[in-house]
Amino acid sequence: MSTAPLWIAGSFRPSADEGAGFSAWNPATGRPILGEYPISGRRDLEALLTAATGAAPLLAEASPETIARFLEGYAARIESHAVALSGLAHEETALPVRPRLFEVELPRTLKQLREGARIARSRNWREPVIDTAANLRTQRGPLGKPVVIFGPNNFPFAFNALSGSDFVSAWVAQNPVVAKGHPGHPHVTEALAHLAQESLDAAGLPPGSIQLCYGLEESSGFALVGDPRVGAVCFTGSRPAGLALKARADSAGIPFFGEMSSTNPVFILPGALAERGEALASEVAASCLLGSGQFCTKPGLLFLPSGSLAEQWTGTLAGHFAAAPEAVLLAAGVRDRFESALEAWERAGARRLTIAARPVTEAGFRAQPALFSVDIQTFLAHRDALETEAFGPAALVVSGIDPGEMPGVALGLEGQLTATLLSAHDGSDEDCYRPLATVLRTRAGRLLNDKMPTGVLVSPAMNHGGPFPATNQPGFTSVGLPGAIRRLTALHCYDGVRPGHLPAELGNPNPTPGLWRLVDGMWTEGNID
Amino acid sequence: MSTAPLWIAGSFRPSADEGAGFSAWNPATGRPILGEYPISGRRDLEALLTAATGAAPLLAEASPETIARFLEGYAARIESHAVALSGLAHEETALPVRPRLFEVELPRTLKQLREGARIARSRNWREPVIDTAANLRTQRGPLGKPVVIFGPNNFPFAFNALSGSDFVSAWVAQNPVVAKGHPGHPHVTEALAHLAQESLDAAGLPPGSIQLCYGLEESSGFALVGDPRVGAVCFTGSRPAGLALKARADSAGIPFFGEMSSTNPVFILPGALAERGEALASEVAASCLLGSGQFCTKPGLLFLPSGSLAEQWTGTLAGHFAAAPEAVLLAAGVRDRFESALEAWERAGARRLTIAARPVTEAGFRAQPALFSVDIQTFLAHRDALETEAFGPAALVVSGIDPGEMPGVALGLEGQLTATLLSAHDGSDEDCYRPLATVLRTRAGRLLNDKMPTGVLVSPAMNHGGPFPATNQPGFTSVGLPGAIRRLTALHCYDGVRPGHLPAELGNPNPTPGLWRLVDGMWTEGNID
Repeated sequence: MSTAPLWIAGSFRPSADEGAGFSAWNPATGRPILGEYPISGRRDLEALLTAATGAAPLLAEASPETIARFLEGYAARIESHAVALSGLAHEETALPVRPRLFEVELPRTLKQLREGARIARSRNWREPVIDTAANLRTQRGPLGKPVVIFGPNNFPFAFNALSGSDFVSAWVAQNPVVAKGHPGHPHVTEALAHLAQESLDAAGLPPGSIQLCYGLEESSGFALVGDPRVGAVCFTGSRPAGLALKARADSAGIPFFGEMSSTNPVFILPGALAERGEALASEVAASCLLGSGQFCTKPGLLFLPSGSLAEQWTGTLAGHFAAAPEAVLLAAGVRDRFESALEAWERAGARRLTIAARPVTEAGFRAQPALFSVDIQTFLAHRDALETEAFGPAALVVSGIDPGEMPGVALGLEGQLTATLLSAHDGSDEDCYRPLATVLRTRAGRLLNDKMPTGVLVSPAMNHGGPFPATNQPGFTSVGLPGAIRRLTALHCYDGVRPGHLPAELGNPNPTPGLWRLVDGMWTEGNID
Repeated sequence: MSTAPLWIAGSFRPSADEGAGFSAWNPATGRPILGEYPISGRRDLEALLTAATGAAPLLAEASPETIARFLEGYAARIESHAVALSGLAHEETALPVRPRLFEVELPRTLKQLREGARIARSRNWREPVIDTAANLRTQRGPLGKPVVIFGPNNFPFAFNALSGSDFVSAWVAQNPVVAKGHPGHPHVTEALAHLAQESLDAAGLPPGSIQLCYGLEESSGFALVGDPRVGAVCFTGSRPAGLALKARADSAGIPFFGEMSSTNPVFILPGALAERGEALASEVAASCLLGSGQFCTKPGLLFLPSGSLAEQWTGTLAGHFAAAPEAVLLAAGVRDRFESALEAWERAGARRLTIAARPVTEAGFRAQPALFSVDIQTFLAHRDALETEAFGPAALVVSGIDPGEMPGVALGLEGQLTATLLSAHDGSDEDCYRPLATVLRTRAGRLLNDKMPTGVLVSPAMNHGGPFPATNQPGFTSVGLPGAIRRLTALHCYDGVRPGHLPAELGNPNPTPGLWRLVDGMWTEGNID
């Protein structure tokens, strides 16, 4: 059995390193999938970086139309292979083909690629700012160096290092990409690489615009993100891996954008509980269990007011968890870490409300949905352990909180991607809402009101980001264009530069319908007189 | 003699640490200035952070009008004390009162404070983005934690930790400040603190909004920037100090914005040399020697084409340097590092073109303006040593470059704040310009054409930033509002939040004339229907 090739400098070629390979696993059967992928070391690393570095100046000079055509062609090719790709992804991730992969994640991915094309064409990612009196003109431009992207396990398309938000962001900003595909779904990523290659060829873009590897020896992973040839690193994944890579990037002065897990607290206010407890229990359970609980924005911590209504509600929620089918998790490691997290919760004093049965089906990486509860005193005494993310179909109810004490509890929370307030429609929670929302505002990138956090809309107004340690740059989002692109740009200022030497976006005539420019303090789509 | 107090939580109080104090020095006489300032340790640190942390939620809730009134009141107080402040700064820095301090730097500082007030009032730093269909609304907000600012030695007002661009940026974004004044000009900083305190009181803002210390034990400096209570760190200064502080901030996941020196290369193209060599020699010399060469954007490396005209031009430039008066540098350490840098240049093969005389005046921290030259082969063989910044009145001419080889030379340059191309007005340098500008674009934050880099205009279109190691975040500027404010903000997204729970800037009515919002892809100052 031969090992799959890497994609470097426009060709599919075998790994130059001699390490062992790896196989993907079918999470539903627990068996390896036929086919081996390489684990790259120093030699591959050198080839990946050399190719990407060589492409940087060429890609920086490419026309917006070419960049857009690639994205559109790639989206079209993915779309025409959607059935096969969804099937492949299902085999590698156990995520359902319908609705999840075929009806939700792939369309989202296509939308993101096409939105990227639209922004490449409009050039609005450049955010031109012009001071005509001083002839001082600034816009965003490529980094001049490749972007390294580490894709996560849980979204084989929408966050794939080769087709997700980081990829589109790097691409619109005309930076070459070194993609490190997640080893959980290499077949999907390999299939995407071939479609991307065809799309590059069709658009006439340089080989070396995109590189792909599947696995990295630990020392090579560190060497990659700490290499001065790298312009920026995007990472979505676990906190320990993210922090270790961040430390290497930091030491080389390379901007690192990490999304590194979040427990996404939900505060349920007394009025909401009284008004529509039943409905909320269904909504919360559905959000917790979506995608087998393997969402970055899964609500993992549920804070409840004191009182018998809350106790009753917790019972209803536990019923939903108990009635949910057993989940297939993405990988054996995911299942093991999930079970360890639950054990850590129990050791810290949390009580399991659902039966801890062995999975009915022995094969595969399975787990029972599990709801836990803990009283607020125990939570406060062991918050480090109890705030640990359990990535999978579980949540922890923290009960018995006087609503007046909720802001104090929120103040101690780690930085989060999201925080949610469920409040009464009749206004009876207003007194609780305001002080709590004020504190939660400082703890999360996205604040939700009467809505569950698992949906992350692709919109310019989205913020998929938040304070440390959820991410390490609270001023940025990794989803939503053009915001996410901003991470992967350099500010390019032209001072006293003659008209003939200016890039088109900064000249007096506006080169593109729909390009907004901040000219002497006014946003305008017009020309400069 | 008693030691000056710190400014903590709205009161001027003695240091709680028992370390030795320090005095400022008069650079012109080389004598200490009467008055001692504390070197703070762990106890002061705790008091500084406690006060600032306590002020964070209060300041976040302050009205834009209050924030603006503080900035305007502070500017007015500085203006009314301008003569005294300029005199004080002159004594501590030896920078001339006129034109530098009184006519240039103070007005620039006032402009920045007042521009900050204007932007606080217009709220345009918040950059609201609204998706009405999804009821998804995002804007920038305070970090929720204090910003630590390290001011540099070379701009006692315009970059002072208590009145400069970083200060204004932190303030407009409603973050409390922990200012670490530069020990070179503590009297100026102390005077500013009293004016700031009066202005806080007048605006009715919380004590703890601003804290000030003057010196920090090394371990306490590291502890400060690595403290999880800190929201971000701004640093302007030397590369070794910046990198050491950055490492501590990085390890705690705290965003660090460092400006850490630059040699600001200037490429003189053959046509320009032939067309207006004499004029360029005067311009270049003036820019190199401005402020005794103590500018972050001083052109320190001058690249010349091969040929006799360039040799002759170098002689003319050397004449300007030789004719310039001896310079008084900011501190004994600055002078010593300056002399060491010149020695390192000489050891690496550079030749001194001006006489290495001892300063005529023995007193004070003096240095002779010095021009060096080196041929391109030697430069390329020893570029690490020869690219080292000599902070002071010196420049290095790199000669004998075939213009076709200039892009290759530029490609090897470190990241810079600025890069300058001096080209002929008659178009004869066009063939050289384009490939060279393309490479320099990737190496510098600001590209100048026929203009010297020492002027850093306070304008929304300015970029005072650049690739590593000039700074560590190439997507940001530290001068120019509102761009510089963006560094010190968190993205605040509201998802499905009811109208009554939204901040004013994100509601359907536009709360402020002049606030631009990106609504459904269109920038508008209007209301949402």
